[in-house]
Amino acid sequence: MDNVWLNYKEALDGVEREIDRGLDSEVRLINETTRYILMSGGKRLRPLLLIISAQMGNVVDQRYLLLGCVVEYIHTATLLHDDVLDHAKNRRGRLAARNLYGNHASILAGDFLYTRAIRHIVTLENVEMNYVLSLTCNKMTEGEAWQLAHTMDFNLTEERYLKIIEYKTASLLSAACKLGGIVSGGSSEETETLSRFGRYLGIAFQIQDDTLDYLADYKRLGKPLGQDIKEGKITLPLIHLIAHCTEQEKEEMLHLIQSSKAKKDITSIIALMEKYGSISYAKKVASDFVTKAQQELNFFKNSTHREALRAVANYAISRDY
Amino acid sequence: MDNVWLNYKEALDGVEREIDRGLDSEVRLINETTRYILMSGGKRLRPLLLIISAQMGNVVDQRYLLLGCVVEYIHTATLLHDDVLDHAKNRRGRLAARNLYGNHASILAGDFLYTRAIRHIVTLENVEMNYVLSLTCNKMTEGEAWQLAHTMDFNLTEERYLKIIEYKTASLLSAACKLGGIVSGGSSEETETLSRFGRYLGIAFQIQDDTLDYLADYKRLGKPLGQDIKEGKITLPLIHLIAHCTEQEKEEMLHLIQSSKAKKDITSIIALMEKYGSISYAKKVASDFVTKAQQELNFFKNSTHREALRAVANYAISRDY
Repeated sequence: MDNVWLNYKEALDGVEREIDRGLDSEVRLINETTRYILMSGGKRLRPLLLIISAQMGNVVDQRYLLLGCVVEYIHTATLLHDDVLDHAKNRRGRLAARNLYGNHASILAGDFLYTRAIRHIVTLENVEMNYVLSLTCNKMTEGEAWQLAHTMDFNLTEERYLKIIEYKTASLLSAACKLGGIVSGGSSEETETLSRFGRYLGIAFQIQDDTLDYLADYKRLGKPLGQDIKEGKITLPLIHLIAHCTEQEKEEMLHLIQSSKAKKDITSIIALMEKYGSISYAKKVASDFVTKAQQELNFFKNSTHREALRAVANYAISRDY
Repeated sequence: MDNVWLNYKEALDGVEREIDRGLDSEVRLINETTRYILMSGGKRLRPLLLIISAQMGNVVDQRYLLLGCVVEYIHTATLLHDDVLDHAKNRRGRLAARNLYGNHASILAGDFLYTRAIRHIVTLENVEMNYVLSLTCNKMTEGEAWQLAHTMDFNLTEERYLKIIEYKTASLLSAACKLGGIVSGGSSEETETLSRFGRYLGIAFQIQDDTLDYLADYKRLGKPLGQDIKEGKITLPLIHLIAHCTEQEKEEMLHLIQSSKAKKDITSIIALMEKYGSISYAKKVASDFVTKAQQELNFFKNSTHREALRAVANYAISRDY
């Protein structure tokens, strides 16, 4: 995967320049808040997917670097809003923007990035791209709201969970791939295939994220262990556990979570997950989605770009932070 | 003004149907939150301006009703976010959405309306409209952030204040008028004139709002007196007062505001405003902007629509709630 980042460094640097160039608000507070989070060491996974997808076709439109900036802006906007809504302390191992600039500024900086992204995409004057982006943003919001509606809901099904993460996370990764296809003049079969690749990859990526929450330690992930359960977020390992543990264990877990002592006793839940194989199960589901994603790639002829996308898919579930 | 609402009732009802039709999220929480605030007796001023502007030309595109819905969605999105950021208790004389559905749901419902508005506008497949709307949303966010950056800032100038309200409020009223011009096939002179009309009207509207905050009582406005000063928002009457009162009065005011006793002692500030004519001054500035707005209308030939726009401009500063 290190090679992949390296091979697309030139285009990624171009995206970086676009990201920087767009943070030119007349309002200093907006510039400072957005710059703080955007320059905090994000991986630029979404721009990378867009770049590879675009270069796999014939990039005819150099404005694909601007599109890379657009997907990163939208991603960052959701992080700014999420951190406020989740009362997050840290992000990427340092203070969350809201703890430096306040909740108010974080919400508005997020709104600014959303609307600046829309402004950029409008300048491309391409109806199809407009459709993709506007649908995606709408879906992401619905996914977040769905998740909220299922807070502390021990009856959340795996099916619904998968739909939620498809909406809130996978839709943007899917859009990044699809936009790469569109901007390089891909056929509708090609762009739809890229869209599905990104969707499956995105679902795997989020399951991995949700699983790491029960595995990774604070230093690697930049946030404390078991954060999701403390916020009442029910994710795949827990859904599996709830479906397989005894009624009494379920009662005890519910009691523990509701009594907000989760911080102390998260280890007991992790122990149960190991007992019932819930972590392995979640990893297996993520791995299956990566396989589905990679199968989509067979539609394209062999190339370094195709192999790069394959590597990104593997990375989604092999990363441990 | 009552006649104006009546004369455009058919089109306004059409907008109402579009507003209702768009609230079809798969997520019930989104539908409930957005429906709650959208059906809480908003005046639909922005759709009205769009309708009149469109009918003044020859409406060639019946989808202008959808545009009316779009500007109301965007307006409502800002209200949802504002109420969270301002910790508002009430809106329009009843509980603010955030007190019924929570801050989290309110932010997401706002994001949903923003992104649904963008989705609607994209379906119109009109590049110029896309530009107008995306620029407007971006400006509105910057205006809000600017206002935030000047919280408690006794050095805020009238010039900067006017710029802030132009961005945060007038830009959407301006866009509503301009979009009405575009959708009815107006020339660029016509749409620019409508845009300026809306901007001046919007500035007057916000000054009136800021002045009513020191005048109107709770029942009429649906929110308590002196709300702005309690939130540290510096508006025109206060800017005038700060520029004209003695150093000692200024010190006392600053002390009073910072000590958060504003609730009790707001009457002393109002007394000072009367002493120095700050309320009358603000009203005069608003009235001058209405005159400027109405002068723009002379560009158009006489018609019932032109007179309706004139009436809306008068309404902006004559309303007492």
